[in-house]
Amino acid sequence: MRKTYFTPGPAELFPTVEQHYRDAFELQLGSISHRSAQFRSIYQHTVEQLRILMDIPESNGIFFTGSATEIWERIIQNTVEHESFHLVNGSFSKKFYDFSKELNKYAHQYEKPFGEGFDYAEITVPEYSELICTTANETSSGVQMRPAEIHKLKRANKDKFVAVDMVSSAPYPDLDFNTIDTAFFSVQKSFGMPAGLGCWIANPAMLEKSNRMKTHENQIGTYHSLPSLFKNFEKFETPETPNVMAIYVLGKVAEDMNKIGIETIRKETERKAKLLYSFAEKSDFLEIFVKNPEHRSQTVVVVNVVGRSAADIIKQVQADANLVIGSGYGDFKASQLRIANFAAVNVEQVEALIEVMKK
Amino acid sequence: MRKTYFTPGPAELFPTVEQHYRDAFELQLGSISHRSAQFRSIYQHTVEQLRILMDIPESNGIFFTGSATEIWERIIQNTVEHESFHLVNGSFSKKFYDFSKELNKYAHQYEKPFGEGFDYAEITVPEYSELICTTANETSSGVQMRPAEIHKLKRANKDKFVAVDMVSSAPYPDLDFNTIDTAFFSVQKSFGMPAGLGCWIANPAMLEKSNRMKTHENQIGTYHSLPSLFKNFEKFETPETPNVMAIYVLGKVAEDMNKIGIETIRKETERKAKLLYSFAEKSDFLEIFVKNPEHRSQTVVVVNVVGRSAADIIKQVQADANLVIGSGYGDFKASQLRIANFAAVNVEQVEALIEVMKK
Repeated sequence: MRKTYFTPGPAELFPTVEQHYRDAFELQLGSISHRSAQFRSIYQHTVEQLRILMDIPESNGIFFTGSATEIWERIIQNTVEHESFHLVNGSFSKKFYDFSKELNKYAHQYEKPFGEGFDYAEITVPEYSELICTTANETSSGVQMRPAEIHKLKRANKDKFVAVDMVSSAPYPDLDFNTIDTAFFSVQKSFGMPAGLGCWIANPAMLEKSNRMKTHENQIGTYHSLPSLFKNFEKFETPETPNVMAIYVLGKVAEDMNKIGIETIRKETERKAKLLYSFAEKSDFLEIFVKNPEHRSQTVVVVNVVGRSAADIIKQVQADANLVIGSGYGDFKASQLRIANFAAVNVEQVEALIEVMKK
Repeated sequence: MRKTYFTPGPAELFPTVEQHYRDAFELQLGSISHRSAQFRSIYQHTVEQLRILMDIPESNGIFFTGSATEIWERIIQNTVEHESFHLVNGSFSKKFYDFSKELNKYAHQYEKPFGEGFDYAEITVPEYSELICTTANETSSGVQMRPAEIHKLKRANKDKFVAVDMVSSAPYPDLDFNTIDTAFFSVQKSFGMPAGLGCWIANPAMLEKSNRMKTHENQIGTYHSLPSLFKNFEKFETPETPNVMAIYVLGKVAEDMNKIGIETIRKETERKAKLLYSFAEKSDFLEIFVKNPEHRSQTVVVVNVVGRSAADIIKQVQADANLVIGSGYGDFKASQLRIANFAAVNVEQVEALIEVMKK
């Protein structure tokens, strides 16, 4: 009996994913050359579907890595000579900041307590920061930073790069890729695929910076440096042998999403999130964790558990109805639940989860 | 009508791979947490099967990356403060060398012409080299370096790390992991899986070096530094969300190979290679590229095409019998064929290929 996953990544598979993998095996995509016309057309198709879905300009490169985690490292390596600035409010935004320090950069942070979010007006960007790292969706705490705030940050800091970690919300946030410089996600969250692929979107200004850093003898990495990625991208190729099947399936999932329409997906996401937050508000054993409604994630709903054991709720819901809820992150494992609200689960499934949780 | 691939990576899928992926979907491995007991037991199983298959000591870590290409970068980053030494005789050994230079290290090379191999006796290792990079199987030219020669190199240079690129021959080479320090492969060659996973085997001495480098403020990377990998490995976890399904399938393929037995696989590989080299020798339109029989790869057979077009042969063989031969690498595309001899294809299939090629 298959379970339905409401976990924030890895997550429930998008309904068409398994069939797309069957097709991929039928087409023997596990055996084709990554330097063949067939592969190049697969890469191109995926790029085109993502451009439509997320409104990404032609000038932006769309690259593939082993994971989104890798992209934290690559962004710092390719754009930061000396200083980066990080909005830190949870485990994942903190890791991006930690990576900068591990890469021997001078990393500044503006930190807010777990469960709180950022608005443009309160942010002071250190003068010499070359890169501002924002998180559209802090997966550990269920806090979002709205695109409008991120855009204001970039417009007020045109000479600095703005990176957006949209790992647990893509394609939901309506980011303006003509404004921000770079964003990234991985496939095992809202795209509902098995893990094994990160996706990095970057503009030409980032390439220019990495080239400049290279001439200054900075170490910008090797096969996944921006010059290497952009160069191969010109012919829809990758520097190394990539996860060909995942690139194919991502393109198919993006195509499926385009058939539904991104606006519909956004509305549905908000509708389902509203159901979950309303339920938590009315519940006598749950409370919404994020106090400011404007900072409440639409794709990862985090609630405190009151008067019960979070682990017991998770166990019970799984035993009763084969539904798997995400546990709180790290220290919050015992006291919180994280309910993923990705595109793979529809309104009916969310309503069913709520019914089960009402006990 | 499915094709049979004799390409050196991506390659023909090992016969059980598709079923293992079906099982993985049935088990919903695309949705499980990478920090769950279930995942940890999957990782552990894969490690145990690889230890048996390749005779890897308990003290060695076995890690997963996005690709083997990534491992070139990680090895240099984690073990080379200043100088590395590279045996270069083709595109892939050259790339390993190039990566060292791109990472701002002082990279020495001993270069031999395309098609020639290395023996211990002729190698002079630069005094201050910290790492010696060898290639067990140079995929571009079909040249192997025999394990005995690699072991001699390490024994004569105990204070230096010896790395072995076994990407297009693992698990065939009988490497002594108590002698060499590190080796690596990717899954889309002889393990016959779709691409998307690199496998890095490293000993504790490498971890020690990377820790020392860290205290000397070297930049050893972030999530895929050896300290990070070893730490997570203690609990059979990964630093980032990995390609869970591929780790599962690799463990299953290794288990299938263990049922056959590594000695049997080695004998079969040599038997099939002998058939191919004999055919080339007797053929009036092919000749063996690698002159020295001791340097002839057993897993990637490279032949010159004489008096015909290599591309025509490839096209004809595919049209006649749905068999896909690998083309020559780079500049040799017009004049060579590379016939992969991985575990996925059996003696009958190799004999059938030879029959078709006899025209």
